Amino acid sequence: MTTLPLPTVRRYPIYLKMLETSDVFGSCDSISGATLAGALGLEEILVRKDLALLGVPGRPRIGYPKDAIVRALRNRLGWDNSTDAALVGTGSLGRALLGYKGFREQNLSIAVAFDSSPANIGMRIGRISIQSADKITKIVSRLKLRMGILTVPDEAAQDCADKLVAGGVKGIWNFTSAHLAVPDGVLVQNVDLASSLAVLSHALRNMMEGAEQ
Amino acid sequence: MTTLPLPTVRRYPIYLKMLETSDVFGSCDSISGATLAGALGLEEILVRKDLALLGVPGRPRIGYPKDAIVRALRNRLGWDNSTDAALVGTGSLGRALLGYKGFREQNLSIAVAFDSSPANIGMRIGRISIQSADKITKIVSRLKLRMGILTVPDEAAQDCADKLVAGGVKGIWNFTSAHLAVPDGVLVQNVDLASSLAVLSHALRNMMEGAEQ
Repeated sequence: MTTLPLPTVRRYPIYLKMLETSDVFGSCDSISGATLAGALGLEEILVRKDLALLGVPGRPRIGYPKDAIVRALRNRLGWDNSTDAALVGTGSLGRALLGYKGFREQNLSIAVAFDSSPANIGMRIGRISIQSADKITKIVSRLKLRMGILTVPDEAAQDCADKLVAGGVKGIWNFTSAHLAVPDGVLVQNVDLASSLAVLSHALRNMMEGAEQ
Repeated sequence: MTTLPLPTVRRYPIYLKMLETSDVFGSCDSISGATLAGALGLEEILVRKDLALLGVPGRPRIGYPKDAIVRALRNRLGWDNSTDAALVGTGSLGRALLGYKGFREQNLSIAVAFDSSPANIGMRIGRISIQSADKITKIVSRLKLRMGILTVPDEAAQDCADKLVAGGVKGIWNFTSAHLAVPDGVLVQNVDLASSLAVLSHALRNMMEGAEQ
């Protein structure tokens, strides 16, 4: 399987959600690139290009077979098989991710959670009981988990990432601001809320000052 | 005040956190670009360029005055004044953001929260009581809020964004996958967890298949 362009991969969940939940397409078995683009407010040419990369042939004036497109999207995203992940850090953000229902659609399931604070270890959140961070490598390795989710304070991030990698994790979803050093063959996807908020508040500040002048 | 390059703005919170919390710099009043770059694992030339944009002059072999750099960073990020925001959508993610302590460092304070579900309206989370989404425009306007945080289901996102904008909001931190249409002069910063996870799971899947071959 070839690696797809990142912007395309980022749009695939949007197409999938629209196809699986919207009634824009009625009971129709086919969808056209134009309808999908229109419903999402995207350029038609972009949508056509993204769909072409799925390898499902469309037919002129009829469009693409909806079921085949949905299957291909789920397959390309790796969402046709459930991915079990380890979550490290059960502060406010970690707990939110543990309870976040949106992951189910994406077949992501958090199998185990870790924390370093004795006050949290042993506590249950839903069906998961929190384990000591000392056991990350051992448990992750035993459960054969390939994905880790990091929601620890920045200063603990590298140490926890090292433990996850030692346990066999190949992909880290990093919610900290820390720059993680990982070996080749391990992927890091950053979701840095502080940086994202920084961009917005800096722009807002500039705009407000402009308005006052 | 000039608009800074986005990558620079994204790194500013990282510098600030390092300068305010780390003891790498000991009790020293000055910091060098090299030390800061080393502590963060960044290129020195990049750090120097970012710091130069703050307009605080450094001195050869001594470095930059630490206090002045911290003040300039906070100022450029708009974090020397508290920003009050309205949060819309009090599901699992919205509640997490309400309880997320990390915002305090960034002087972001959530002043009010809205939900459309009668079961949630009137409920208290911490010091905030949840208001009906019907009142977004009225309350946001009365409180003169300029920032909105969207943690609603995708299908409700545009409607809630419209209500925020009608109330005077100029910046929206969008945690949904929806593409928001907003008037000129309103900024949207997207944090799309579904897309971020899609990128990671697609890459993981490719890697696993590669390893099996």
